[in-house]
Amino acid sequence: MKRPKYKQIIEYIKEKIGNGEWPIGSKIPSQRTLAREFNVNRSTVITALEELAADGLIEGRMGKGTVVVSNTWTLLANRSSPDWGKYVDAGFQQPSRKTVQEINQSESNPDLIQLSKGELSKDMFPLSVMKEMMGKVAHNLEAFGYEEPKGYLPLREALSRYLRTLGIQASPASILIVSGALQALQLISMGLLQSGSTVFLDRPSYLYSLHVFQSAGMKLSGLPMDEAGLLPQTIGTVPRGRAILYTNPCFQNPTGVLMSQKRREEVLRLSEKEQLPIIEDDIYRELWIDQAPPPPIKSIDQNGHVLYIGSFSKTLSPGLRIGWIVGPEPVIERLSDIKMQTDYGSSSLSQRVAAEWLTTGHYQKHLENVRDQLKKRRDFVLEVLAEHLKGLASWNVPKGGFFIWLNILPPLSMKSLYAKALAEGILLNSGSIYAQENGNFIRLSYAFASSGDLKKGIYQLSLIIKTLATESGKK
Amino acid sequence: MKRPKYKQIIEYIKEKIGNGEWPIGSKIPSQRTLAREFNVNRSTVITALEELAADGLIEGRMGKGTVVVSNTWTLLANRSSPDWGKYVDAGFQQPSRKTVQEINQSESNPDLIQLSKGELSKDMFPLSVMKEMMGKVAHNLEAFGYEEPKGYLPLREALSRYLRTLGIQASPASILIVSGALQALQLISMGLLQSGSTVFLDRPSYLYSLHVFQSAGMKLSGLPMDEAGLLPQTIGTVPRGRAILYTNPCFQNPTGVLMSQKRREEVLRLSEKEQLPIIEDDIYRELWIDQAPPPPIKSIDQNGHVLYIGSFSKTLSPGLRIGWIVGPEPVIERLSDIKMQTDYGSSSLSQRVAAEWLTTGHYQKHLENVRDQLKKRRDFVLEVLAEHLKGLASWNVPKGGFFIWLNILPPLSMKSLYAKALAEGILLNSGSIYAQENGNFIRLSYAFASSGDLKKGIYQLSLIIKTLATESGKK
Repeated sequence: MKRPKYKQIIEYIKEKIGNGEWPIGSKIPSQRTLAREFNVNRSTVITALEELAADGLIEGRMGKGTVVVSNTWTLLANRSSPDWGKYVDAGFQQPSRKTVQEINQSESNPDLIQLSKGELSKDMFPLSVMKEMMGKVAHNLEAFGYEEPKGYLPLREALSRYLRTLGIQASPASILIVSGALQALQLISMGLLQSGSTVFLDRPSYLYSLHVFQSAGMKLSGLPMDEAGLLPQTIGTVPRGRAILYTNPCFQNPTGVLMSQKRREEVLRLSEKEQLPIIEDDIYRELWIDQAPPPPIKSIDQNGHVLYIGSFSKTLSPGLRIGWIVGPEPVIERLSDIKMQTDYGSSSLSQRVAAEWLTTGHYQKHLENVRDQLKKRRDFVLEVLAEHLKGLASWNVPKGGFFIWLNILPPLSMKSLYAKALAEGILLNSGSIYAQENGNFIRLSYAFASSGDLKKGIYQLSLIIKTLATESGKK
Repeated sequence: MKRPKYKQIIEYIKEKIGNGEWPIGSKIPSQRTLAREFNVNRSTVITALEELAADGLIEGRMGKGTVVVSNTWTLLANRSSPDWGKYVDAGFQQPSRKTVQEINQSESNPDLIQLSKGELSKDMFPLSVMKEMMGKVAHNLEAFGYEEPKGYLPLREALSRYLRTLGIQASPASILIVSGALQALQLISMGLLQSGSTVFLDRPSYLYSLHVFQSAGMKLSGLPMDEAGLLPQTIGTVPRGRAILYTNPCFQNPTGVLMSQKRREEVLRLSEKEQLPIIEDDIYRELWIDQAPPPPIKSIDQNGHVLYIGSFSKTLSPGLRIGWIVGPEPVIERLSDIKMQTDYGSSSLSQRVAAEWLTTGHYQKHLENVRDQLKKRRDFVLEVLAEHLKGLASWNVPKGGFFIWLNILPPLSMKSLYAKALAEGILLNSGSIYAQENGNFIRLSYAFASSGDLKKGIYQLSLIIKTLATESGKK
């Protein structure tokens, strides 16, 4: 005979409290969540909670939900658990902004229409070749342990050859393998900058949605952009030796802007004049649609001003967690030392599989396919936009990358738009996350959702915009 | 016709300078290194360097070697490169201590006898099963992208079952997958502690050789140990809410000490009394030789005081870069948020391969084999020690793990011992790295080197000790 449901709930909660997973002071899931998880009515949940409260284990608190106040063991011994809350608030790394946290969580929810997600759709995942590459790596595998501090040498050699095709001369010794571009930024913030330094950057920028530099006490100083990229002449005073310039010259995240050749030269000249090192985050470069973008700033950098960042996350799969930093050897050595102090290097398996993709030439073939698919997707979304959002939004036509920077025209609250869309099963990244100051923007991604979802999502978005615009008009 | 060697050297250096890999102010390799690399006499190198100096590209500086002072492009334009040196010195993450850096580098040198290396020998690497596991993962692979913030769910589920065998009740929601135990510490330092916090720990401890807490402004406060582990009663005043206790209760690194059951209970009681959270770094647990160690402190922790760290690095391969943190859910959530901000999670491939090892039961079988091998190795090294180091050193008999904590008896300089051994091709980690205060200690590892190398290395070590002891006696 099965135990009654409310008993199951009681035992579940008692176990969580008893084994310390839900320590004293922590909030237990809401009645609604528990009801859903156990597939019961809320009244059943309430019965269970009342019994636990009677036992002195939990307590409802005004405005705080139900919290754990004791456990069987402390009831016996009158001991209590450490105030982890104090620790959780104390760390110098600030928690992500709430919306960003919510987005991180919601991005793994398969029931949502992901209208903003900066990742290739599963149907562009090269599954059969990935299996082949893994099989090859497995076949040729030898015992592996910690890698060299800068990363698996055959991968760095393959990258050195690959970078030459982009116009960048870099020996394996000036390349550091990292676990994705975000780690590259983390290492730079830890290893090269000091608290109080200034990070100049395009505004809006994806970097505003991260905390990597701010957590380390650096301030972001946004530079305005036009359709050819950031405007270097707007930079003002540069604190010598305590500043760096971060830019995303190819298909910028979130605006999709492609920096022109001329602008690249101007940015490099500024860097030379002001002795301002550049972080060139070029992870979208290979995702061009109409024609290859101008060569990297790094390729015209004769003086080691530029740290160049690349990655497989946007082109192949973020699950590999493989990226790279290219720069002057002493800088790369410093960063590799920090990486050793942080995580002792990236996965040997991922590094071997990545090397296999490059050396077999499958990576280049895969890129060609991705470009074709992205072109189809972009053109499709432009059609859908023209059909449903004409008059409600304006947009650019991106030449590559994942994103269309959608400017919502009717005055409305972006908070309401985000919340209403989420309630209807659509996840949006609004421009405010990226520090877009004026106007209402959405980062629309044509790379991830299925065509059905894109169509449906944009259509629903148009309805929500109309509703909110009417409501806002009434006020 | 081949170009003369000195021309090749010139072109090589010009290319390095020209493409910015060796920026202005950086030191070029020594004459000896260049001579070896190009397989020429030093006089040939000097000819090349003189020509480059005449061109104004490099300059010999007293006590600093030869540095890059200009490049073809700056000669034209009189521009110079940013002073990366200023940046390299500035970052808040301090560079590893020089010796530790040298050891990190030397550990990948296959020509050295590695007498201290904390890693399983290649001959314990389960190559055929690893190939099988990778093959299985490849076969069942589906498209993968970013994983959930806490890590690949099937791996967390497998770990939850595995942890139960150690007496730890932890649901997948209270487990965070990390890229090795070092990253676990990094995340804790970033996410839970604030600058000025105190980290209590065993002394000596491996943690002293890292910078993970010190770089974040925390101070280490060492507690003395006896043969049953750290002595909790020596702790003194505990700053409430601003302190944490780090310990390595199983086969401590570097001493090999196994904390007794009774001591574990005392440490937990201290933690409860002082509201002092514990980091239980238990990465050596499974490497027991004579009998299984007492259950983890975490298994008797009823109040969520303990963050428990485990890893595959010591038991299977560090190249997987897979470890885990187990703790109260709110703490795990906080740490997972920091991990997302740091590197967006660990390699999908590594996580899948790790899950396969656990779910197929191959991990447990592999551990049995490793224990057998370690027992043979330990007993062998004890014999060799008895043969060559009797009277020159004293040591404990470890019950598991990798290390014998070797106390060198004759008074001599450990610096000289380290340097002389390295010059003879033997890499040692001396006790000072781990903040051993009194006496001369070496962390001797029986896990890595071949039996031939162990025998030869220990024999040579005995000769070096004798020589240095005689020299030191003469002074």
